[in-house]
Amino acid sequence: MVGYAFMGKAHSQAWHTVGRVFDVPVAPELTAICGRDEAATAEAAGRYGWASHETDWRRLLERDDIGLVDICTPGDSHAEIAIAALEAGKHVLCEKPLANTVPEAVAMAEAAEKAAGRGVRSMVAFNYRCVPAIALARQLARDGRLGAIRHVRARYLQDWIVDPDFPLVWRLRKEKAGSGALGDIGAHIVDLAQHVAGDVLTGVSALTETFVKQRPLPGGAAGGLSAGEKAGGTGEVTVDDCALFLGRFAGGAVASFEATRFATGRRNGLSIELNGSAGSVAFDFESMNELHFYDHTEDPATAGFRRILVTEPTHPYLEAWWPPGHVLGYEHTFTHELRDLLVAIGEDRDPAPSFAEGLRVQRVLEAVESSAADAGRWQPID
Amino acid sequence: MVGYAFMGKAHSQAWHTVGRVFDVPVAPELTAICGRDEAATAEAAGRYGWASHETDWRRLLERDDIGLVDICTPGDSHAEIAIAALEAGKHVLCEKPLANTVPEAVAMAEAAEKAAGRGVRSMVAFNYRCVPAIALARQLARDGRLGAIRHVRARYLQDWIVDPDFPLVWRLRKEKAGSGALGDIGAHIVDLAQHVAGDVLTGVSALTETFVKQRPLPGGAAGGLSAGEKAGGTGEVTVDDCALFLGRFAGGAVASFEATRFATGRRNGLSIELNGSAGSVAFDFESMNELHFYDHTEDPATAGFRRILVTEPTHPYLEAWWPPGHVLGYEHTFTHELRDLLVAIGEDRDPAPSFAEGLRVQRVLEAVESSAADAGRWQPID
Amino acid sequence: MVGYAFMGKAHSQAWHTVGRVFDVPVAPELTAICGRDEAATAEAAGRYGWASHETDWRRLLERDDIGLVDICTPGDSHAEIAIAALEAGKHVLCEKPLANTVPEAVAMAEAAEKAAGRGVRSMVAFNYRCVPAIALARQLARDGRLGAIRHVRARYLQDWIVDPDFPLVWRLRKEKAGSGALGDIGAHIVDLAQHVAGDVLTGVSALTETFVKQRPLPGGAAGGLSAGEKAGGTGEVTVDDCALFLGRFAGGAVASFEATRFATGRRNGLSIELNGSAGSVAFDFESMNELHFYDHTEDPATAGFRRILVTEPTHPYLEAWWPPGHVLGYEHTFTHELRDLLVAIGEDRDPAPSFAEGLRVQRVLEAVESSAADAGRWQPID
Amino acid sequence: MVGYAFMGKAHSQAWHTVGRVFDVPVAPELTAICGRDEAATAEAAGRYGWASHETDWRRLLERDDIGLVDICTPGDSHAEIAIAALEAGKHVLCEKPLANTVPEAVAMAEAAEKAAGRGVRSMVAFNYRCVPAIALARQLARDGRLGAIRHVRARYLQDWIVDPDFPLVWRLRKEKAGSGALGDIGAHIVDLAQHVAGDVLTGVSALTETFVKQRPLPGGAAGGLSAGEKAGGTGEVTVDDCALFLGRFAGGAVASFEATRFATGRRNGLSIELNGSAGSVAFDFESMNELHFYDHTEDPATAGFRRILVTEPTHPYLEAWWPPGHVLGYEHTFTHELRDLLVAIGEDRDPAPSFAEGLRVQRVLEAVESSAADAGRWQPID
Repeated sequence: MVGYAFMGKAHSQAWHTVGRVFDVPVAPELTAICGRDEAATAEAAGRYGWASHETDWRRLLERDDIGLVDICTPGDSHAEIAIAALEAGKHVLCEKPLANTVPEAVAMAEAAEKAAGRGVRSMVAFNYRCVPAIALARQLARDGRLGAIRHVRARYLQDWIVDPDFPLVWRLRKEKAGSGALGDIGAHIVDLAQHVAGDVLTGVSALTETFVKQRPLPGGAAGGLSAGEKAGGTGEVTVDDCALFLGRFAGGAVASFEATRFATGRRNGLSIELNGSAGSVAFDFESMNELHFYDHTEDPATAGFRRILVTEPTHPYLEAWWPPGHVLGYEHTFTHELRDLLVAIGEDRDPAPSFAEGLRVQRVLEAVESSAADAGRWQPID
Repeated sequence: MVGYAFMGKAHSQAWHTVGRVFDVPVAPELTAICGRDEAATAEAAGRYGWASHETDWRRLLERDDIGLVDICTPGDSHAEIAIAALEAGKHVLCEKPLANTVPEAVAMAEAAEKAAGRGVRSMVAFNYRCVPAIALARQLARDGRLGAIRHVRARYLQDWIVDPDFPLVWRLRKEKAGSGALGDIGAHIVDLAQHVAGDVLTGVSALTETFVKQRPLPGGAAGGLSAGEKAGGTGEVTVDDCALFLGRFAGGAVASFEATRFATGRRNGLSIELNGSAGSVAFDFESMNELHFYDHTEDPATAGFRRILVTEPTHPYLEAWWPPGHVLGYEHTFTHELRDLLVAIGEDRDPAPSFAEGLRVQRVLEAVESSAADAGRWQPID
Repeated sequence: MVGYAFMGKAHSQAWHTVGRVFDVPVAPELTAICGRDEAATAEAAGRYGWASHETDWRRLLERDDIGLVDICTPGDSHAEIAIAALEAGKHVLCEKPLANTVPEAVAMAEAAEKAAGRGVRSMVAFNYRCVPAIALARQLARDGRLGAIRHVRARYLQDWIVDPDFPLVWRLRKEKAGSGALGDIGAHIVDLAQHVAGDVLTGVSALTETFVKQRPLPGGAAGGLSAGEKAGGTGEVTVDDCALFLGRFAGGAVASFEATRFATGRRNGLSIELNGSAGSVAFDFESMNELHFYDHTEDPATAGFRRILVTEPTHPYLEAWWPPGHVLGYEHTFTHELRDLLVAIGEDRDPAPSFAEGLRVQRVLEAVESSAADAGRWQPID
Repeated sequence: MVGYAFMGKAHSQAWHTVGRVFDVPVAPELTAICGRDEAATAEAAGRYGWASHETDWRRLLERDDIGLVDICTPGDSHAEIAIAALEAGKHVLCEKPLANTVPEAVAMAEAAEKAAGRGVRSMVAFNYRCVPAIALARQLARDGRLGAIRHVRARYLQDWIVDPDFPLVWRLRKEKAGSGALGDIGAHIVDLAQHVAGDVLTGVSALTETFVKQRPLPGGAAGGLSAGEKAGGTGEVTVDDCALFLGRFAGGAVASFEATRFATGRRNGLSIELNGSAGSVAFDFESMNELHFYDHTEDPATAGFRRILVTEPTHPYLEAWWPPGHVLGYEHTFTHELRDLLVAIGEDRDPAPSFAEGLRVQRVLEAVESSAADAGRWQPID
C-alpha cells in the first residue's frame, strides 16, 4: 500500500477484516506499506499491521511477495504509480479521483485494459458504491422498480474549511489535488449517480466558487511550502470550495449536483435521490444503513417512502455480517470494496468500478471545470 | 375575490379566520366572489360564505362596498385585473406568479407604485413566507445568526403529473399559465430564497425539460380546447415539467434550485437550506412546523441541527394561536398573509411582498427561461 | 357553547369552518357563548364570532334557538351541565375527560342512553381520533393489516410545568381537574389505544408521581384561592405530574402508557405504536400528517416502515381539503369531530365516541389511580 | 475465548481491531478459541483468526499463554467458567447477562472482588455503553446538563420470532437462557438506564407475556432436544416473549421499560430517553451515531432537540477513528469495550462495568420476574 494517511488507515483496516468476514478466494497478506518519511511510515506499519515498509513505491513493484498495490496517495501521483504497477504485473486498487487530469486518466485506462489482457486487474476506489443501501438502490433501478428515470439529485456537503483560518493543506492546492470539492467529493456523487441510474451523463452546465481565497500556510516541513511562501504567511487557495452543476443523462433524466466544503453543520452529507416513472429511492450517508424507497405502483392510500433498514441477510454484502438491525459503519464500505476486488481476481475477471469508469468520471469533472470557466455554457461529454 | 378554485377556497377560509384569530385593524367582510360560470360561482359563494357573486370582475371595481380585490385567477389575467382594480382605488392581493411575462409585471409594479401614492395598497401572495418557520429563518438570517451566507439550495418537488395519462389541464398550457413548474412552484422558491437570504439573485444558468410532450385533452367545455383540438384526442404540453437552475446572489452566495412535477413520491416537497459562515437553517414543508437551525458558534461537542418546533408564543404569528406543540397547517399561511396585509393597510403603509418584489421574481423566471433556451449560458439579472 | 378558554377558542374556530369545508346536513349557527365573567364572555363572543352571550349555562337550556350544547369547562362541571342539557333535549358535545369520577360518568352515560331514545345525541370530544393519520391507522387495524395485535405503546409527553415557579393553576388542583396529566392527556392515549386497536383494556398496573409538590398561588381573583390560601403564598399540588401504566387488552395485547407534563423539550408529544402479527403502525402528533406503516407480508428485501403522508383524497376526511401534500393542523381535528357529530345527527344515529366510550376511559383512569395507590397491584377493569 | 456464535464473531473482530485503532497498553493476541464441537471450533478458529482451539474451556485456564478469558457462551455456563477463570488468575470478560440467576451473579461478583485484590480484573460486556452517543449522554448527565432527572424511558424492540414457525432455539428455553427478552435485551436497557442516569433502580412493577407458547423443535443434534422431545414435533417456549416494567430510581426519577421480540418491523430498536429539569437526551440505536439533546436553559425561540452527530474528535472514543461524519457501526461498540478493558488492566484498576454492576442488573431482572409473577405488585430492589 502506498500512503498512510486517512485513506491508508481505512484501507488497512479493511485489508485486515475482509478475509475474516467474507469468503474470498485469496487471503490477503499485508506485506508492505510505503511512504516518503521513513519514521512515520515505520510507525504506520506497526500501528496498521503491515509486515514491512518502504520509502520508495518503486520498491514495491520489484518485490515478488507483493501481488497487489493499493494506491492511497494524492491524485497527482496516481497515474505514474498505477501504470508502473500494472506494467510490473501487480493488480492495482487506486483511490479516487482516478487522476488529476483527463490525459492521465486516459493513459491509466489504457494501461488497465492492456494489463487485463495479461490477467492483471485494476479497480478505482469509489467506496460509496459499496454501501449496502446504495447497492440495493442500484438493484432496484436495474430491476425496473424505478421505471424511466426522470431526476437525479446528488449532494455531497461538508464543512471542514468554513473557518477562514483553516490552513492551506494539500487538498487546497491545485498542483497536488487537481481540484477542490469537485474532485474530492464531487467525484463520488458523479460516480454514484451514474452507477445507481445505470446511465451516463452526456453534458453539464456548471458553476464553481472559492469563498476564502487566502489561507494561512501550514507550519513546518509538512506544510510543503511552494517557492516564495513563508511559514506564518498566507497562500492562495487554488482550488474550488464548491462546485454546482446541472446535467443530462443519455436516457433522458436531468440531474443536479452540489459538492461543497462550506455547508456549515453538514459533516459528511452525501445524499442522492432518483425519481422515476415507477418509483423513487433516496439515500443519505448520515443514515447509511437506510434506503428510502417509494413504489409508485402501490395503492395511494398506503403508499409512502419506506425506510428500509438495509441489514437483512438478503441485502447486498449483508449475509456475511450481523443479525438484522445491527448496523454497519463507514469503514465497511472499504471491506466490501476489497471483497469485490478479491472475488473478481479469484474469478479472473475485471472488477468494477474499472479504470474506464474512473475515466468517465474524470471526463465529467473536466466538463464541469470547462463549463464553469465559460459562464455555465453547456459542455457535452463524449 | 376573483376565482373560486383551489386558491379561491384557501383564501376564503383565511378571510373568515383572520379576524377571529388576529387583532387586525379592519374586520374583513366577504362581500362578493366572482367567476365566469354563474352557476358554479353562485355555488362557491354559498359554500365559501360570500355574501354575493358576480360574473364579470369589472363589476367588483364598480361596487362601493368592496375595498379590496383578491385575485386568484390564472396568471394571464393578473395584469389586467390588478391594474384596473388599483386604478379604481381598490387594494389588491394578487396570487403568484405576479404575471406571465416581465412586461406585464413591470406594468403592474408601476401601477402599484402609483396607487401607493394614493394610499391604495398591493401585495403578491407568496404565502410560504408566512409559514412561521420560514419567518423565523428570516429573523435568524437578519439577526446575523447565519453570518455570511455561502449556499442556498431550494427545491419544490411535486408528482401530480407523473402519469402520462394525466390530462392537459390549463396549468400545462403556456398561453394560460405562462410556464409550468417554473412559474407555478419555482416562483415560490425563488421568492423564499431571496426573502430568507435578504439578498437578490444577480444571474442564473438553467435547464428545463418536458418529459411528457403529448397528453389527453380534458373532456367537456371545462377542457377549454384550443382551435383544432378535439375532445378525446391529445394536445401538446407547452410548458416545462421541471426547471433546474444555478444562481449567484449579490452578497456572494451561490444557489441551486429545482422545481418539478415529476418527483415521484414527493407530494408538495418544498425545501430550502441556507449555509452561512456562522450557522445554517433547513426547512421542509412536509414538516412545516419545524425549523432546523445549526449554530456554528457552539461547542462542537454539543453542536447539531436543532429541531425547533415553531409553535412558541414568541415565534412569528404564533402568539395568536394554540399552546406550544399544537401545530398549524397549510391554510394558516394564508391567514398570516391576510393578517400582514390588513395590518399594513391599517397602518397606512405598503405590505410585503410588494408587486416590485413580485417583479423581481418574474425577472428571475424570465432569466431562467432565457438561459435554458441558450444551452445554460449565464443570464444576468438587472 | 359553555367555556371560552383554550378549548372554547378551538371549538369556535371549528364551528365556523365545518360547514364551509364539509357537506354537513345542518349548517351550524354560533348562537350563544356562556361564561361566568360577563365582560370576558362578551369579549369572547365578539372575538370568536358568537351571536350572543350568557353568564349562566342554564339559560342556554331554556333558549329555543339553541339545539346543541358544547361543553368546554373543567371536568368538575361536565356531569351537571351535560345531564341537564340532554334532559332539556339539547344535543351535547362534551370535552374530555367525560367527568372527574366514575359515578359522574356513569350518570352521564345513562342520561345519554335515555336521551338517545328520544333522538337527542351526545358525543365526547376525543379529538385526536379525528387526526386523519389516526383514522387511517384504525382502518388498517380493522382491515386486518396488522394481524393479531401484540403490543400497544402510547405516550403523551408535555413539559409546560417543568419550571417549579409555574403557578398553581386549576389544572393542578384535584377538586377542579380530577387528576393531573392522567385525566388531561392520559385520557387521550387511553381512548386512542382502545380506538385504534378496536379492543378494550381489561386491567392495569400503575405508578404516578408529583415531582413539584408546592407551587406559587396565581395572583388575583382569577387565581381562585381556596380557604386558607393567600396570594403571594404557595399551595399544594393535589394532582399527578405524570402517570405511567401497563395494561392488557381483551384480545391478548399488552400495552404501556405514559402521560407526563415533565418531559422537557416535548411540547405536545402524543405518540402511539401498535405491533401486530401482520404489521405495525406508528404515529407521532408532532408530525401529525404522517402515518408510519410496516407491512410484514412484504418481501423483506424492500420491507420497511412507510412514511404515508396522509393527505390523499382517499384518506379519511381529506377529500374535503387541499391537494396532496398540503398539510393540516391541530385545529382541524375539531373540524372533523364536528363533521362526525353533525353527520350523525343528520342521519339520526349516535355519533362516536359515545358517552359510554367516555365512561370506559374513565374506568381505566380510575383503575390507574387505584393501582398507583396500591403499589402497582394489578387492577382489573370490568 | 469461549463460544464462537454471533457474540464470538463480534468479539473476535474487536480483538483484531482494538490494538490497531487505539493506544492500548497491551497488544492482544488471539491465542485460543474454545467450543464443544471440535470441527466447528476449528473452522471458527481459522475464520476468525485464532491461533489455536480447544474443546474444553478448562484447558484455557491451564494454558500459560492465555491471560484473559472472554466468555461468549449462553448464560447458564457463565458462573462456572468465570469463577474458575478468575481463580486461575485470568482476567475475565463475560457476556451479559452476567448469569441466569441472582445467586450465581452474587458468587461471580464475590469472585471478582477477591480476584481484584490479586490484580485480576473482570468486566461484564454491556457493549451498548460503548456507543459514543451513549457515552456522550452519560457525560451530559454527569455534568449536570440534564438537571434533576425526572423520567427515563427505555425500549428494546426486536421482531425475530414474530413468525410462530420460528423454531425453539436455545434462547427460548429457560434452562439455557434463564429468561427471554428480559435477560437478553432487557438487561441492556436496565444497564443503560442506570448507567446514563448515574443512579440505581429501587423497585419495579412488571408484566411479562409469552405470545407463542409452542414452537417447532429445531432439527438435528444442534437442536438440543430435551428428554421426551422428538425432532419434527413441537416444544414449549419456557421464557418470556416480552417484558414491560415501571420503576423508580433512588434519585426520584420514574422509568418505563419494554423489551420484546414481537415488535414487528423493529429489527434492533434500542432507544432511551431521559428528561431532566435542565434538559433531555434521546437515543435510538437505529441511528447510533446520533444523540438528540435538548437544553432547557436556552432561549425558547431557538431551543429544540439538537441532532448531534457523535463523530467529532472530542467525542468519546472518536479521536481514534475517522474525520467527522464518517460513521461507526455496531461492531465498534465491542472495540471500545475492549479498549476500556485493556486500558484498565494496563492501569491496574477495575474496568467498568464491573461484575457488581452486572449483579445489580441481575437483581432488577429478578425483581421484574417476581413482580410479573405477583400481578404487578411493587418489588423493591435492595
